[in-house]
Amino acid sequence: MTTTQTNAKVQQWTNLAQQLRVDSIRCTTAAGSGHPTSSMSAADLMAVLLTSYLHYDFDNPQNPNNDHLIFSKGHASPLLYSLFKAAGAITDEELLTLRKFGSRLEGHPAPVLPWVEVATGSLGQGLPIGVGIALAGKYLDKLPYHVWVLLGDSEMAEGSQWEAFDHALHYKLDNLVAILDVNRLGQRGETMLGWNTTAYATRAEAFGWNAIVIDGHNFNEIDQAFARAAQPIGAPTVIIAKTVKGKGVSFLENVNGWHGKALNKEQEEQALKELKPVRSQTFPVQKPEDGQPAPKAPIKALELPKYDGKEAVATRKAYGDALQALGAANPDVIGLDGEVSNSTYAEEFAKAFPDRYFEQYISEEQLIAAAVGMSVRQRIPFASTFAAFFTRAYDFIRMAAVSRANIRLCGSHAGVSIGEDGPSQMGLEDLAMMRAVFGSTVLYPCDANQTAQLVAEMADHGGIVYMRTTREKTPVIYSPDEEFMIGGSRVIHQSDRDEVTIVAAGVTVFEALKAYEQLKSQRIMARVIDAYSVKPIDEETLMLAAEEAGNKFVVVEDHWPEGGLGEAVLEAFSMRDGPMPEVVKLAVQSMPGSGTPAELIEEAGISAYHIAQSARTLVRNV
Amino acid sequence: MTTTQTNAKVQQWTNLAQQLRVDSIRCTTAAGSGHPTSSMSAADLMAVLLTSYLHYDFDNPQNPNNDHLIFSKGHASPLLYSLFKAAGAITDEELLTLRKFGSRLEGHPAPVLPWVEVATGSLGQGLPIGVGIALAGKYLDKLPYHVWVLLGDSEMAEGSQWEAFDHALHYKLDNLVAILDVNRLGQRGETMLGWNTTAYATRAEAFGWNAIVIDGHNFNEIDQAFARAAQPIGAPTVIIAKTVKGKGVSFLENVNGWHGKALNKEQEEQALKELKPVRSQTFPVQKPEDGQPAPKAPIKALELPKYDGKEAVATRKAYGDALQALGAANPDVIGLDGEVSNSTYAEEFAKAFPDRYFEQYISEEQLIAAAVGMSVRQRIPFASTFAAFFTRAYDFIRMAAVSRANIRLCGSHAGVSIGEDGPSQMGLEDLAMMRAVFGSTVLYPCDANQTAQLVAEMADHGGIVYMRTTREKTPVIYSPDEEFMIGGSRVIHQSDRDEVTIVAAGVTVFEALKAYEQLKSQRIMARVIDAYSVKPIDEETLMLAAEEAGNKFVVVEDHWPEGGLGEAVLEAFSMRDGPMPEVVKLAVQSMPGSGTPAELIEEAGISAYHIAQSARTLVRNV
Repeated sequence: MTTTQTNAKVQQWTNLAQQLRVDSIRCTTAAGSGHPTSSMSAADLMAVLLTSYLHYDFDNPQNPNNDHLIFSKGHASPLLYSLFKAAGAITDEELLTLRKFGSRLEGHPAPVLPWVEVATGSLGQGLPIGVGIALAGKYLDKLPYHVWVLLGDSEMAEGSQWEAFDHALHYKLDNLVAILDVNRLGQRGETMLGWNTTAYATRAEAFGWNAIVIDGHNFNEIDQAFARAAQPIGAPTVIIAKTVKGKGVSFLENVNGWHGKALNKEQEEQALKELKPVRSQTFPVQKPEDGQPAPKAPIKALELPKYDGKEAVATRKAYGDALQALGAANPDVIGLDGEVSNSTYAEEFAKAFPDRYFEQYISEEQLIAAAVGMSVRQRIPFASTFAAFFTRAYDFIRMAAVSRANIRLCGSHAGVSIGEDGPSQMGLEDLAMMRAVFGSTVLYPCDANQTAQLVAEMADHGGIVYMRTTREKTPVIYSPDEEFMIGGSRVIHQSDRDEVTIVAAGVTVFEALKAYEQLKSQRIMARVIDAYSVKPIDEETLMLAAEEAGNKFVVVEDHWPEGGLGEAVLEAFSMRDGPMPEVVKLAVQSMPGSGTPAELIEEAGISAYHIAQSARTLVRNV
Repeated sequence: MTTTQTNAKVQQWTNLAQQLRVDSIRCTTAAGSGHPTSSMSAADLMAVLLTSYLHYDFDNPQNPNNDHLIFSKGHASPLLYSLFKAAGAITDEELLTLRKFGSRLEGHPAPVLPWVEVATGSLGQGLPIGVGIALAGKYLDKLPYHVWVLLGDSEMAEGSQWEAFDHALHYKLDNLVAILDVNRLGQRGETMLGWNTTAYATRAEAFGWNAIVIDGHNFNEIDQAFARAAQPIGAPTVIIAKTVKGKGVSFLENVNGWHGKALNKEQEEQALKELKPVRSQTFPVQKPEDGQPAPKAPIKALELPKYDGKEAVATRKAYGDALQALGAANPDVIGLDGEVSNSTYAEEFAKAFPDRYFEQYISEEQLIAAAVGMSVRQRIPFASTFAAFFTRAYDFIRMAAVSRANIRLCGSHAGVSIGEDGPSQMGLEDLAMMRAVFGSTVLYPCDANQTAQLVAEMADHGGIVYMRTTREKTPVIYSPDEEFMIGGSRVIHQSDRDEVTIVAAGVTVFEALKAYEQLKSQRIMARVIDAYSVKPIDEETLMLAAEEAGNKFVVVEDHWPEGGLGEAVLEAFSMRDGPMPEVVKLAVQSMPGSGTPAELIEEAGISAYHIAQSARTLVRNV
C-alpha cells in the first residue's frame, strides 16, 4: 500500500472505531445497563477486522464461505451490535432497542440474530466452539474461511480456554485466530495477569500457538497482526492486544468500577463530546470468494444393525454399531468422543470413518464445544463419553441450548449397574441434568434393537438430544423390526386384570420383568411400561395405565431420586386434570461403593425384589 | 549420604516398587478388573515418595501436620492401596478385597478409607483440590506440610488442570508438588503429547511453575527431583516423569490395549515370575514434626444483620451481610468467589476478612475444588458465583459429594428475574442440578431476614449446601426475629376456608402474595406456602395443606419445569400413602430473552396473573 492508501485506511479505521465507541455508549445508556467500557477497549481491533480482514456476506449469513466471528466476551455485545450497524445489517433504531423486551439485541449475543451463530455470555466458551468450526472448515468443508474469536482477558482463567489451545494445536488449526483484549480489568478488579501480555504470549507459545503481542490501539500494529494471522502457517494464532478499558473517554479509561455499567444521560453527553463527532456511517465489508464445500459421499439408505436375541448385547455396543450404520448412510454424521471411545463404542465409527471422527481426548468441555461448532456448519454431531462425565460440560450443554444448537450426546456407563468401578464413574444425575436443559430430549433404551432405532431417531431430531447407555450386556427383548419413536414407550405386559403399573427404563426394565413374574405367581397382575423416552415422556400411555390398572404406579430407575424418570412420570400426571395416582418411586438412595452390578442394584433398592415388594404393598395396601 | 547409604536406599526403593507392582497386579487379578498397568508406571515414583519424602502419621490421619497425598489419577487405586499396605495401614487380606461389595477399597479412591481425603476418578480434579489444601496450609494453618498430587498424562487435557496451574502460581504455592506420570498411553491410545515431556515442561514453566523432567524409573533422578521439589522456592513444582505403562512386566510394558484390564490367573503368574520375588514387607514412613496450626481468632456470638423492612433488599445482599457476620463470629469461615464478588456480595466478607478470602477468578471448577480443599482442612468454606455458572463445575460438585466434603455454595442471579442480561446469565437449571447431588441441601430464600437466618444454618450443616439468591431487591416480609430452619417452610397465609394452596419460593413468593390478594377479592381463599427449603422440603406442611385446602396445589418457580420446586413438591407427595393431590406446575417454559424482570416473569407464565388464573381453574374447575 502507498502511504496515501495507508492514511486513508487509518482514517477509515479511526472513524469506524469512534463510531463503534459512540454507539456502544449510546445503546447501553438507552438500555440503562450493559457493558460500554468492555466494548470500547476492543473497538480499534474490531474496526480493522471488520473493514480489512473479515470476509462476510451480511446479506447471506448462510454462505458457506463466510468467515465466522465469535464474541467470546459476550458482554461486549454493544460492540458487536455496533459492528452490525456499521456493516449496514441493522438500523440505528434497532441498535437502540438493546436489552429491551422483544428485541433481537439481547444482553449477550444469541442466534436470534442471523449473524450470531452461537450464544455467548458464559465466558470461556467462544474459543472451544471456534475450534469446532475451524475443524469443520479445515477438515470437512475444506474452505479457506477464518474463525475469529474475540476473547476477554478475565476469561483466560477458565480452563476451557486451554482445552481449546491444546486442541487447536493438535489439529493444526491455522484458520483460527484468537484476539485477546487485554484491558486488565475484570468485573471486580484486576485480572491475575493484569497487563502482562508477555505472560499470555509465553503461555500461548508453550501451547504451540503463534502469538503476536501488540498495542491494541495502534492501527498499524493491529493491521500487521491481522495480516500475519490471516496467513495459514500450520498453527493457530493469538493476537494479544494491550488495551485500555473504556478507551476514548477520559473518565472511563482504565478506571476500576465501570464494568457492566451504563453511563447516565449526563455522562453520555460528556463522553460523546470527547469522542470525535462521527456520523452513522456504513462501512464496506469484503464478501468471501465463491467456493464450494468439499464434496460429500452420497446419502444412502440407512441399514441399522439387527440383533437376533441369541445373545445379550450392551446398549453402548448397539450405540456404536448404529452410529457406524448412520455414518455409512449420511455423510454429515460426525463422531466425537472424550478419549473413551473403546468404552462408549464410538470407536466403531472412528475406525470406519476416520475423516469424520475427531478425537477430543479427556476434555469434555471441548467435546461439547466441538459438537456445537459442527452444528454451526450444519453437520450432525454425535458426542460421547461416560454419562457421569457430561457433568463436566454442563455449562456448555446449557449454553448449547441457548445457541439453538443441534447436538446429540451419548452417555455410557449409567447408574450403579456399572458395578466395580465405583461412584465416581456412575452417571447418577445425568437424567436430571439433561432433562433440565431447554428443549432437550432424553432417551434411555434397554435393549440393542431399541437403541439402534433411537440412534437413528436422534440424527433427525433437533436441539440437545441425549441418550443414556448401559455398560453391562442386557438381553435383547425387542425384534429388530419394532419401531421406537422419541416420545413413545413400550407396554411389555398388560392384561385386563392389571392392578398396578411398573414404569422402568434401561436396566430397570429387566428388574421390572422379573418382578412381573414374581407378582404374577402371587396372582398380582402388573402392567410393565418401558419408558425409554424419558423426555418427552409418553403421557398417553401413562394415563391409560392409570385408568386401566388401578391408578397405582411403581417407577424404578438407576439414578438418584431427584429429577429422573420418577419425577418425569409425576410431572406427566401433574399436567392432566384430576387427581394424581399413587406413585412409589424407587431410586438410588445411598452412596454406592464397588460391587457387582447385581449386588449394587440390590443394595440401591431398585431390584426385582424391591419392585415386587412395592407393588404388593400398593395393591394389597399392607 | 554416603554411597553405602545411597545404595541401601536404592535397594529399599527397588524392593518397595516391586512389591507395589506385585500387589497392584495381585489385587486387580483377584478383583477381575481394575488398572494394574497405570499403577505400575508410577510405582517407582511412589516408592521414593513414601519412604523418603512423605511425612504422614498413618496412625493419626487427622494430625494437622500430615502431608497430603492425592491420587488424581484415581484409576491407579491399586497402587495407592498397595502403598497403604506397604505402610502397614491395611493388611494383605484387605488389599485382596479390592472392588468387592462392602470393601473400603473401591474401584477409585474414596474417603471411606481414613487415609483418603478426597474421592478421585473423575480426572483433572486432584490438582485443583490440592491447590485448595495448599492454600489452607500456606495461608491458614501456616504449617510446613506438603501436598503431593499424582497426575496422569491423559488428564492433562482437562482444562481444570490449567486453572490449578494458574492459581498455584498466583498464590505462590511452593508447598504443592505435582508428579506427572507420563506413561504415554491413555485409555484408547496415545495421548496428545505422548512422551513429549519437554512440551509438558514448557507449558508448566509458562505458567510459572518449577518443572523437573526426569526418567520416572531412575531412582537417583526421582530422589533428586523430590529433594528439589520439597524445598520451598516461592513457586509450585511439577515433576514430569517419563514412565512406561505396565513397567516391570515384559508383555505389559508400553503396550496399547492394556488400560483398565486385570491380568488373568495365568498372566498373573507369568508377571509375578518376571518381577523379582518380594515379601509382603512393611516400610517405614516418616512422621511429621509436631506443629500447631496458626492461632485463630476466638469464636464469638453470631450477630446476624437485621432488616427492618423499610426498604427492599436483594437476598444476594443479605447473603453478603450474613456471610460477613458469620465471618466475625467464626474464624473457620472462609470466603471464595469466582470474580463476581461485587455481584454475589461476597465482597463484604472479602473486605472484612481479607486473610480468609481467596479470590478464585473466573474458574468455577477451581472455585469448587478450593472449597473442597478447605473442607479437608476442617474449614467452613462458602463459595459463590452466579447460579448459572455453577453448571461449569457440576462434575466437581458431584464429586465433592463422593468426597463427603462439607461445602456451602451460593448462586446469585437466579432465574428470568435477573432481567436484561439474558438467558446466558440466568440460573434456570440450578435447582435441578443441585437437588440431584447426593445428600445435598437446597435453599431459596425470598427475603433478607430469611436469607440471613439460612446462611447461619448453612454454616452448621454438612454435605453440599446450596443457596440460590436473587438479583433484584425484594420486599422484606419477615421479622428479623423469625427463625428459619433447613427443612422448614413458612405458611404466609392460611384460613379455614382455604380451597387451594400456592407453593412458591424466592421471587415467586411475591407473585404468590399478589395472586392471593386477587383471589381473595374473588372470594377464593388460598393458602400460601413459602417453600424456602427446596431440599429437604417440608413434607408435613404440604401434607397438612393437602388435607385442609382441598388437595389442590399451584407450584410456581423461576426455573425450567424439570427438577425444581415443582418436582420437589410432587416427590414429597409420592412418598406418602394415598392418592396424590391435583398439582399445577408453573415454570419457565420458553427460552427467555432480555427485558425487565417484570416483563420476563410475565412472559414466563410465573406471574401473579398466571398463578391466580391457575388457582381459579383448579378451584372452580373451569
